[in-house]
Amino acid sequence: MRKDWKNGPLYRCWLSYGGYRLTEKSLRFRPFCRFVRIPEDAGPVLRSAAEEWRRAAGEIFGVRPGLTADDPGCPHVRLRADEAAPAGAGSGFRISLESGPSPCLTVSGRGESGVLTGVFALLRAVGRGRSPEEAQTEEESRNELRMIDHWDNLDGSVERGYAGRSLFFRNGRVLRNTARITDYARLLASVGINAVALNNVNVLPPAGKLITGKYLPAVAKIAGIFSAWGIRTFLSVSFASPAELGGLPTADPLDEGVRRWWARKADEIYRLIPDFGGFLVKADSESRPGPYTYGRNHAEGANLLAEALAPHGGLVIWRCFVYNCHLDWRDRSRDRAKMAYENFAPLDGRFRENVILQIKSGPVDFQIREPVSPLFGAMRRTSQMMECQITQEYTGQQIDLCYLVPLWKEALEFDARTDGERTPVRSVVDGSRFGTPHGGMAGVSNVGDGPGWTGHPLAQANLYGFGRLCWQPALSAEAAAREWADLTFGARSPAADTAVSMLLRSRAVYERYTSPLGVGWFVNPGCHYGPSVDGYEYSRWGTYHRADCKGIGVDRTARTGTAYTAQYSPSVAAVYEDPKTCPEELLLFFHHLPYSWRLRDGRTLLQYIYDSHFEGCAEAERLKSDWLPLKGQVDPDFFAEVLRRLDLQIEDAREWRDVVNTYFFRKTGVPDEKKRKIYP
Amino acid sequence: MRKDWKNGPLYRCWLSYGGYRLTEKSLRFRPFCRFVRIPEDAGPVLRSAAEEWRRAAGEIFGVRPGLTADDPGCPHVRLRADEAAPAGAGSGFRISLESGPSPCLTVSGRGESGVLTGVFALLRAVGRGRSPEEAQTEEESRNELRMIDHWDNLDGSVERGYAGRSLFFRNGRVLRNTARITDYARLLASVGINAVALNNVNVLPPAGKLITGKYLPAVAKIAGIFSAWGIRTFLSVSFASPAELGGLPTADPLDEGVRRWWARKADEIYRLIPDFGGFLVKADSESRPGPYTYGRNHAEGANLLAEALAPHGGLVIWRCFVYNCHLDWRDRSRDRAKMAYENFAPLDGRFRENVILQIKSGPVDFQIREPVSPLFGAMRRTSQMMECQITQEYTGQQIDLCYLVPLWKEALEFDARTDGERTPVRSVVDGSRFGTPHGGMAGVSNVGDGPGWTGHPLAQANLYGFGRLCWQPALSAEAAAREWADLTFGARSPAADTAVSMLLRSRAVYERYTSPLGVGWFVNPGCHYGPSVDGYEYSRWGTYHRADCKGIGVDRTARTGTAYTAQYSPSVAAVYEDPKTCPEELLLFFHHLPYSWRLRDGRTLLQYIYDSHFEGCAEAERLKSDWLPLKGQVDPDFFAEVLRRLDLQIEDAREWRDVVNTYFFRKTGVPDEKKRKIYP
Repeated sequence: MRKDWKNGPLYRCWLSYGGYRLTEKSLRFRPFCRFVRIPEDAGPVLRSAAEEWRRAAGEIFGVRPGLTADDPGCPHVRLRADEAAPAGAGSGFRISLESGPSPCLTVSGRGESGVLTGVFALLRAVGRGRSPEEAQTEEESRNELRMIDHWDNLDGSVERGYAGRSLFFRNGRVLRNTARITDYARLLASVGINAVALNNVNVLPPAGKLITGKYLPAVAKIAGIFSAWGIRTFLSVSFASPAELGGLPTADPLDEGVRRWWARKADEIYRLIPDFGGFLVKADSESRPGPYTYGRNHAEGANLLAEALAPHGGLVIWRCFVYNCHLDWRDRSRDRAKMAYENFAPLDGRFRENVILQIKSGPVDFQIREPVSPLFGAMRRTSQMMECQITQEYTGQQIDLCYLVPLWKEALEFDARTDGERTPVRSVVDGSRFGTPHGGMAGVSNVGDGPGWTGHPLAQANLYGFGRLCWQPALSAEAAAREWADLTFGARSPAADTAVSMLLRSRAVYERYTSPLGVGWFVNPGCHYGPSVDGYEYSRWGTYHRADCKGIGVDRTARTGTAYTAQYSPSVAAVYEDPKTCPEELLLFFHHLPYSWRLRDGRTLLQYIYDSHFEGCAEAERLKSDWLPLKGQVDPDFFAEVLRRLDLQIEDAREWRDVVNTYFFRKTGVPDEKKRKIYP
Repeated sequence: MRKDWKNGPLYRCWLSYGGYRLTEKSLRFRPFCRFVRIPEDAGPVLRSAAEEWRRAAGEIFGVRPGLTADDPGCPHVRLRADEAAPAGAGSGFRISLESGPSPCLTVSGRGESGVLTGVFALLRAVGRGRSPEEAQTEEESRNELRMIDHWDNLDGSVERGYAGRSLFFRNGRVLRNTARITDYARLLASVGINAVALNNVNVLPPAGKLITGKYLPAVAKIAGIFSAWGIRTFLSVSFASPAELGGLPTADPLDEGVRRWWARKADEIYRLIPDFGGFLVKADSESRPGPYTYGRNHAEGANLLAEALAPHGGLVIWRCFVYNCHLDWRDRSRDRAKMAYENFAPLDGRFRENVILQIKSGPVDFQIREPVSPLFGAMRRTSQMMECQITQEYTGQQIDLCYLVPLWKEALEFDARTDGERTPVRSVVDGSRFGTPHGGMAGVSNVGDGPGWTGHPLAQANLYGFGRLCWQPALSAEAAAREWADLTFGARSPAADTAVSMLLRSRAVYERYTSPLGVGWFVNPGCHYGPSVDGYEYSRWGTYHRADCKGIGVDRTARTGTAYTAQYSPSVAAVYEDPKTCPEELLLFFHHLPYSWRLRDGRTLLQYIYDSHFEGCAEAERLKSDWLPLKGQVDPDFFAEVLRRLDLQIEDAREWRDVVNTYFFRKTGVPDEKKRKIYP
């Protein structure tokens, strides 16, 4: 690792301006670099935007622009904030080139945050070798919340974190050295993120105390840093706070004392953090307290907090990850996949205006392949957000390469067919489909305090892509990868081409050598890394594959199974209900089928399992041979760290291949048709 | 729980003198209770013995004997220490009744420790309703070391502890409040234990520092308490101490500086703890440092420490639990069961006189059923100890009832047939078979700071029985259970009868509902509790069952398998080699057999698996129905705690039954012949 690693591309990520590749076209930005013009009364976000442009211009073109409030009478960049948009209306910016004697490149936006997003878009154009003319654009994001959820604990650990320790906490305290948080805020702002939850949704002692006087001043300091980059801070809270912190005898949402406690608590927080975003809540889930404890429903629970935050413009983000985690594997009638819907769909219309339900993209838990949650599109009068997992809990833990944007993209584009009409999930979460007041996307952070932020350097593409997708859900997974690679390795460089190719293949590779056809859960319990086919098969977690010597898969049909399919609109349900029409990649999520089942290409199910595992492993090896030629073309630290992980991935892929193939060979006694090595 | 729980039988265990049941015969001890005579120059151990007799007499007969140095001229108890035995010669005592005008019950022994053991034997006779005449006996133990190994960590946790926190350590410190340690020392002394290792053999920071000035004074205080009860203290040390603590560049056993470091360290320890026992060492095992790190063998490693301790009369207890824990499940030629033998047998004769090899009873790791380690009987010129696990790591974790004395007894009685001659393992470990200078038994402690010491109150019988078996390996498992139950519940009480019956059945019950016929390892990885049939099947730990759709078991034969059998003497090997002669309870440890294999009673192997799991679970339920009628006859806290655990055991037994039966049904598709419920 180089000594000045904070100046290397591992740390600087896609904002390594010094590494941007200049082209004939992009050199034409140079004349605009003498001045940047902002009004005298510019607020902190606009000042951040101007400062970023000055820094970037200095590093890219060797010219650090002067700051001016007036027309300098020569080419310059002008930053101008229009009226801020009302809450819930999304954000937008415009980049325009005015020619003439004193040409001006103007970045205007809705509010100062809009301008900031626009300046980063401008830098993206520069970094990708575009000309000033080509940089002109007008963009708008309908996603009000573009959010990162941190599962950071006060002791400095990160739940499901694979990239180091927390950026915010250590040894029970909020970190005082906040230098790195500014760099982090810049990274997030650069891709359009505008909200961040600092602490783990599992609010365990002492994290519950973050909303007390002991911690709030330090939290406010962090919130102030984010604020200057257009990002609002949220906190995860325990539903039982009035009892845990306030000494009240109850946390019953209908109790008058509890209501007063939360109202006072909100006042206290907003005194210290005026632009505080609100609360993120995991309630009645995996042993966390919630309204069910008091015989109340989740609307009553969420509304309690919403009432307290409403006077301050705060939001309640209420997670729908509520299920019975003490299921009996013997009982085939209960289905964890159905539980988010069962708990929340009946409450549609009963939440206060400033409540948003945060729904995981799939119905179970961030597997490499799941259908999209049927809860999207099932509620017409409730604001909804989609929760994605950027951190690779089940998808390789930033050891295995797995570009996740395609997965999120699939979820956003999924058509729920509510009322028989086109209902892409992205139109549900941005509020446009049902006219719900709030919405957006949240991604569980994949960053930590390691030198490269995300463990696997190529996993930076997931953070980048998540933010870009939040801003612009229409962006393709390939375009996001291309942008990221161009900015990271140099526009249209061979390294960028290779990285894009690796990223785009990676999800399929990981899926092939892990769990087939949507069945999921072949992982080691607890850590969720590496193969253990039966690891969750007899557990209480509701995550089964039901493999025996004849067949495999979970029957979730309405006809003979758990009737999970019935949670979808009729036309969608009909597709899933029949194994002949069910998308093949989800076959075992919906159906229990014999190993002799013929897939559309004529192969048996069992042979597909063998084939995909041999192929996936071979493809993992190919990722490495693709990367190797980049030696010397990529920063040495970046190169070495990727290579190290590709080696680990190959080892793991072989383990996956052999364990899964042996498992099914032992179960069936049926050998591989192609006579490849399956250990007995 | 009663408020004065320290006076209840849960805490007092088999030394609850107030609960001893008086009989016509035992009442005849009463006249001897007026005086206890010890010489004026009695040392601390003899004083402990006298004090124990006074306390017991007071509680049993309501008469607290006076202490006298001279003949009181009336019936009395006399304690008299003969010459102490030379090191390695074992221990003994004699109880004799001298009638006449001033009848005297004399307890004499080899050294004060011998007398102490004798006093407890005398109390045992009282508690079991014997007369003074019947109490007369002469006993001798050839096991020099009768030892308890604690796996206690400095933070207060206990590795594989299921009964609370450490009695010695808390939060990185040695406990200052040592009150409870005296009670513990009494319990151990009462069953003949004479050595204790305080800390975990996995010596992780900061435990390595126990042998530094920072900790030694506090350790010395604890050692002093044990010393007064005839128990010597040992410490587990890290082989890398010279580097970790001494700042030396190496811990190479052949390095002169390293040798000097250990010699000085030994001097330092013995200055503070004059009767220090010596070091217990886990080296080159499960990532602990050891001589292999420096290209040396285990004799060179052990001799390094032995040389340092020899001038002080200290011993090195060197564990043989050395194996490769990065095995490949695909490779059927490597066998963890062979590794202790492979590492140590070739070194026979190369260890210094004061080194003892501590060998686990079985070749793998404390499963409910294993053959006896072939290493016993393979070394003729090396002192050996048997290591047993009193704590129930794999045998129900003191939730499930499992009386382990029968298992240890089997190991002690196992005839290794060295050189074709009768070689019971107990004659190897006590040194008599080969004339080795040292030996004995060590048991991994099952105690913690919970109110009843051992979690499950009936698990006190394991601690009791282990000590008694160390003293008197000829004792039967039933006799040990009977003694314990008589002392705990009242001699020949219905509760004692029930408890004995439950204890004696318990091992078979646990074995039936867990893993069949010696195959082992059907447990959840890491925690080792509850069923996970494939949990270790594809791991690096070398613990496999090799089940497929046709058969199960590990082929360890010389003819077609790993040739583990060849580590036994030829006549023993021949028995194991052939599935027709192999003891059936070990069938799957030694052989891979088809499910259709016929057991001697005509049942198929598969049907045996189903049957035993249904039976084991039903028998677990029977344990509860046996216990229930004792309500009111047993101390209420004791009763309730046992009942609570029996309920948990039943739940767990059902889970075991269903998971294991379903696993094999799914794998084979063959239903239960008796059509009992097996979940699909």
